[in-house]
Amino acid sequence: MTQAIDIQKATAAFKALKCKECGAEYELKASHVCEFCFGPLEVSYDYSSLRQTVTRESIQAGPNSMWRYRKFLPVASENPIDVGTGMTPLVRSQRLARRLGLNQLYIKNDAVNMPTLSFKDRVVSVALTRARELGFTTVSCASTGNLANSTAAIAAHAGLDCCVFIPADLEAGKVLGSLIYSPTLMAVKGNYDQVNRLCSEVANTHGWGFVNINLRPYYSEGSKTLGFEVAEQLGWQLPDHIVAPLASGSLFTKIYKGFNEFVEVGLVEGKPVKFSGAQAEGCSPIAQAFKEDRDFIQPVKPNTIAKSIAIGNPADGIYAVEIAKKTGGSIESVTDAEIIEGIKLLAETEGIFTETAGGTTIAVLKKLVEAGKIDPDETTVVYITGNGLKTQEAVHGYIGEPLTIEAKLDSFEGALERSRTLERLEWQQVLV
Amino acid sequence: MTQAIDIQKATAAFKALKCKECGAEYELKASHVCEFCFGPLEVSYDYSSLRQTVTRESIQAGPNSMWRYRKFLPVASENPIDVGTGMTPLVRSQRLARRLGLNQLYIKNDAVNMPTLSFKDRVVSVALTRARELGFTTVSCASTGNLANSTAAIAAHAGLDCCVFIPADLEAGKVLGSLIYSPTLMAVKGNYDQVNRLCSEVANTHGWGFVNINLRPYYSEGSKTLGFEVAEQLGWQLPDHIVAPLASGSLFTKIYKGFNEFVEVGLVEGKPVKFSGAQAEGCSPIAQAFKEDRDFIQPVKPNTIAKSIAIGNPADGIYAVEIAKKTGGSIESVTDAEIIEGIKLLAETEGIFTETAGGTTIAVLKKLVEAGKIDPDETTVVYITGNGLKTQEAVHGYIGEPLTIEAKLDSFEGALERSRTLERLEWQQVLV
Repeated sequence: MTQAIDIQKATAAFKALKCKECGAEYELKASHVCEFCFGPLEVSYDYSSLRQTVTRESIQAGPNSMWRYRKFLPVASENPIDVGTGMTPLVRSQRLARRLGLNQLYIKNDAVNMPTLSFKDRVVSVALTRARELGFTTVSCASTGNLANSTAAIAAHAGLDCCVFIPADLEAGKVLGSLIYSPTLMAVKGNYDQVNRLCSEVANTHGWGFVNINLRPYYSEGSKTLGFEVAEQLGWQLPDHIVAPLASGSLFTKIYKGFNEFVEVGLVEGKPVKFSGAQAEGCSPIAQAFKEDRDFIQPVKPNTIAKSIAIGNPADGIYAVEIAKKTGGSIESVTDAEIIEGIKLLAETEGIFTETAGGTTIAVLKKLVEAGKIDPDETTVVYITGNGLKTQEAVHGYIGEPLTIEAKLDSFEGALERSRTLERLEWQQVLV
Repeated sequence: MTQAIDIQKATAAFKALKCKECGAEYELKASHVCEFCFGPLEVSYDYSSLRQTVTRESIQAGPNSMWRYRKFLPVASENPIDVGTGMTPLVRSQRLARRLGLNQLYIKNDAVNMPTLSFKDRVVSVALTRARELGFTTVSCASTGNLANSTAAIAAHAGLDCCVFIPADLEAGKVLGSLIYSPTLMAVKGNYDQVNRLCSEVANTHGWGFVNINLRPYYSEGSKTLGFEVAEQLGWQLPDHIVAPLASGSLFTKIYKGFNEFVEVGLVEGKPVKFSGAQAEGCSPIAQAFKEDRDFIQPVKPNTIAKSIAIGNPADGIYAVEIAKKTGGSIESVTDAEIIEGIKLLAETEGIFTETAGGTTIAVLKKLVEAGKIDPDETTVVYITGNGLKTQEAVHGYIGEPLTIEAKLDSFEGALERSRTLERLEWQQVLV
């Protein structure tokens, strides 16, 4: 590893790594844990300089990607790795909203994020830009699938060597969705938390840039753009309520940070925003801590189809609990059956096919509405973070079959008649 | 079917359906074939009114979707079905460009198009908006997969009944990618051309809106936005050369129409643009007509892994040949092995995972460069029209396997060493 020279421009707004627990400050190197108290490090900024240099107009004049918010991100380079990531659609929901009885529901759809169809492309774009600035030539990650896809793809684009680690039992689409970019792909016999521990050891011995370990403070900042974009797409306003999936808890805390930064520098008006989080019942350590009003996370062994959010020992879990509490939000969990129903509900009402994490979020949204925890008139944003084509196994057997016919009109007419009869019978059963 | 009232606003610029062969004009109804000469109908516009009302600024002030070009599209409604389709990234290629020896290569990436990850979302958005204006309550299509995905998804969003037809032997991802939206899905034992013939019969008997049959003149106009966006994203300039896949030939002719419309109304300066097209050798009736300098298409029976472009009797094939000829472009075909190499090449150099159609286009791009048919300094745009997660079968067995390891450092070190040795051996073989 060669150390690049200019890792901190005097004109950039990011100033230090700062311990979230004790406040100790560190140089802007590849480091993620406080030497004094072992708390997590976070990037801090000079907001007064941002207030003077950033306007709505200067952002809008930037690229049609997450890099229009470059000044809020911890990179020194004026030419970050921009593959068109971000600026995904914020869809005003009609049919799902009606089905749930909501009047102001929006769907932020990172299932079509560039290049690998999940929000991970945001954090990886920042991490690899920073990795290059810090002189890393090999990048790596511990992943439940989406992160491996994204790291492998963006490393390929940037010409960085890449070695990614996944649990060996991942969905086929996620394995192939990494292999296609020709990284070294390590399939570890174990769950994500075991993969993560192994990667911490490798990070210490190999001098690689692990996007979610030694580069984690930079990496995680990328998720702020999911806050920035929603605020800009709502016409420079914050929503009243957001619902997002919880894996490590990082995404959730960074949307919160993003909203607060926009208020801090005067880009939007401050107002209360409720933060609600979604977990799968088979891996819900954050939801459990929230329900039991604990200030620590009890690690669990994951057992759910929602593999992309199956983190049993979530690094930022306790910060997510804090945010949900102080904003008046909730953290809920749903069963695997509810997750599948959530995937189908979003597809049938909005034409958006999400993976299990998105199914979890929609199912929790429904649960919160039914429990009266979301007011029908609140401007509510639900975050869809990944694409259903990567977890096809999850819905096999739950979505029916095609009607196979001959290429003849009477064969078609017969099949159509049979399917309509079936539909009528199903309706009669519903009515009985 | 109830006839909607206001199917043609006086202020809209689209004026008539016009036969591409004999010029006969028709009302703006659901119709696609000339009653006199059986030529295809196309939408005609009042360009002088567009010249007076549309500016670069008025377009940029529109939504961040293909609907910023609404005035160039054949819909009367001011509230079209906008699910965030279009405005996909135009990526300046670095590593693929270097590999091919090109200096100005751009990739238009509809593999991340919203909602169903192919350019078909553009044409379907127009077709279903128009279907609603014409009073249709059931929409349908004959599809090689992507179109069925898109029709089912956008119909779900719009709350229209939907019945889609596909060949029974499609890739699993494309079948599931329709079923998830709960349409009626007819899997026809036969190839696309047989499916298409059956659908023409159904269109005549059922009064449904078939997006690519009786709504085809409206539908196909949606592809113009792939021309508009590239021109805007290049800074209101046309490229020197484009390379696009050819299935029915419609996409190709509409990019051409889009460029010409922008010149006609003064949004960009006119200049020569070469149009080159890509087909799979196993279904290359358009490439064959081009090579043999014929003015008719000889239908073929498709036999290729590139199923999404496997149309043996392409409706707009001969117009594609004309455009390639008069612009100085080429039409080439590549083998299935070259298609797989094309998919891998794009993934490994740019981090973009495309389906077989995109692999075809990249392989043809490479072939044209090697044949000296693309000048290294030409601004060249290659159109990637669909996502690789839908055709995973195509690359199975060609992209290696993960290295399976225990969650222990020495297991990792051993696997890494073995993979590096293997790499060295492979390199030595290359050098020998």
